[in-house]
Amino acid sequence: MERNKPYLSRKNGDLWLTEDEYDNLKVSYRIKDVIFDQQSSFQDVMILESYHFGRMLVLDGIVQTTSVDGHIYNEMISHVPMSIHPDPKKVLIIGGGDCGVAKELCKYDGVEHIDMVEIDELVVKTCIEHLPDVSGRLADPRVHFVFDDGVIFAAGKKNEYDLIIVDSSDPIGPAKVLFEKDFYQSLHEALKEDGIMVCQSQSPIFHADVMKQSYTRISELFEEAKMYTAVVPTYPGGFWSFTIGSKQHIQPNPSKVSDKETKYVNEQIVNSCFSLPQFITEIL
Amino acid sequence: MERNKPYLSRKNGDLWLTEDEYDNLKVSYRIKDVIFDQQSSFQDVMILESYHFGRMLVLDGIVQTTSVDGHIYNEMISHVPMSIHPDPKKVLIIGGGDCGVAKELCKYDGVEHIDMVEIDELVVKTCIEHLPDVSGRLADPRVHFVFDDGVIFAAGKKNEYDLIIVDSSDPIGPAKVLFEKDFYQSLHEALKEDGIMVCQSQSPIFHADVMKQSYTRISELFEEAKMYTAVVPTYPGGFWSFTIGSKQHIQPNPSKVSDKETKYVNEQIVNSCFSLPQFITEIL
Repeated sequence: MERNKPYLSRKNGDLWLTEDEYDNLKVSYRIKDVIFDQQSSFQDVMILESYHFGRMLVLDGIVQTTSVDGHIYNEMISHVPMSIHPDPKKVLIIGGGDCGVAKELCKYDGVEHIDMVEIDELVVKTCIEHLPDVSGRLADPRVHFVFDDGVIFAAGKKNEYDLIIVDSSDPIGPAKVLFEKDFYQSLHEALKEDGIMVCQSQSPIFHADVMKQSYTRISELFEEAKMYTAVVPTYPGGFWSFTIGSKQHIQPNPSKVSDKETKYVNEQIVNSCFSLPQFITEIL
Repeated sequence: MERNKPYLSRKNGDLWLTEDEYDNLKVSYRIKDVIFDQQSSFQDVMILESYHFGRMLVLDGIVQTTSVDGHIYNEMISHVPMSIHPDPKKVLIIGGGDCGVAKELCKYDGVEHIDMVEIDELVVKTCIEHLPDVSGRLADPRVHFVFDDGVIFAAGKKNEYDLIIVDSSDPIGPAKVLFEKDFYQSLHEALKEDGIMVCQSQSPIFHADVMKQSYTRISELFEEAKMYTAVVPTYPGGFWSFTIGSKQHIQPNPSKVSDKETKYVNEQIVNSCFSLPQFITEIL
């Protein structure tokens, strides 16, 4: 197996995964066990049991989410917009193959219908089976899986969703279009008149240009744009930004999260996550 | 040079630093240039010019602070307690060899005297000369350098300081005593009756036991203990905790930082940094 995968290697009998995401920074994880390993039509899908981060979803050699910290990202991209929209019933998730976002949304009784559009069915099936800490073995009848291109799916929708969550990978390769203005425009049209969207907008430290571009594009299209941040230990730099676009001005209501079973998000965090460090304020 | 340092290696002509801090996680940085390299009586002191994080202070092969993100840690451990104490005049810094904490404190006109007790003189001299982004080439007459053991220095002081900042390395080897109850007790005695102390209390994710222990020990000794967090990209997991011990109950006054030239800290951050994620609240 390792012969065909430059990101897997053996040293003194131990298996290591080395991410090749950056030319100037390499992170290597000691691996206890390969739980799952299969090539889909789109990418190399692995579930690895690591010593430091527990089970990890690894796509084409890049760590996407882990048992130790996957909940932080998934809770932050879900509960923060849920605390803002007064009554979200119909939700669209674009991406989110690890099922963690859908799992968090299912904690709200008011949510009636979730369309989850993920291009790679193998990622979804694998995470439900082998990454239960993140996916919660998602099996909720409100979740409707669509294994298709999120851009094409969203472009066909008008005035339909209360909330759209874009849980994309980095803006290289196929995910690049998920950071384009045309895509945000189609989300604006797919939302109801009081709808809101949220997307991950990369690292404020290492991708300040992408972050600013997302924020600017969303600001231009939506009545209101808001940025918030969270710590995501397995992402480079550990610091991540999210951008919300609202078609109407709506105040967050942090008490909406108070009865939810969460590990990271609570009322205090929903209140404080919009406080931005000085350098981000200056970039925006 | 590289032959004697297991953490430096060459691959395809490029120099790489690989931190050996964890058995199960290795981070490697591509190095443009070795700016400074000398063994002190205590450790191997290097300043490396990296591609990803700019100049880095590296002690015994472990990255301590960098040009790209050093200000976050130094601003957070300085301005947050400065916003709490109503009128800090005399300050003790234990550790802080990169001079970044002293640099931040010198932004306050009310500060009259800073004792900076760092065991390794070579670290201080090197950072002043070769790491100006962090040290600001510190040369303020209010800063009094003491090149000695911080534990012994603090033990000889009674009722003398308004603020004590413990800018320690990790609780292994020589820095272990800086996390002991006896040490916190000596800080309590070295503080005036309305004095406060702050220390870094490690990663909430990877050193939850140390974090809880610091918080518990400080809670038991001081009238009030408060924990806050910040993102420090070059520290493992990117998420770091700080613990304040106050001899009197004092409310933060975030407006004290508003006229300071900072890159990370602002009024919003001082207000929000005490909002703790749910899992930290549960640990404490």
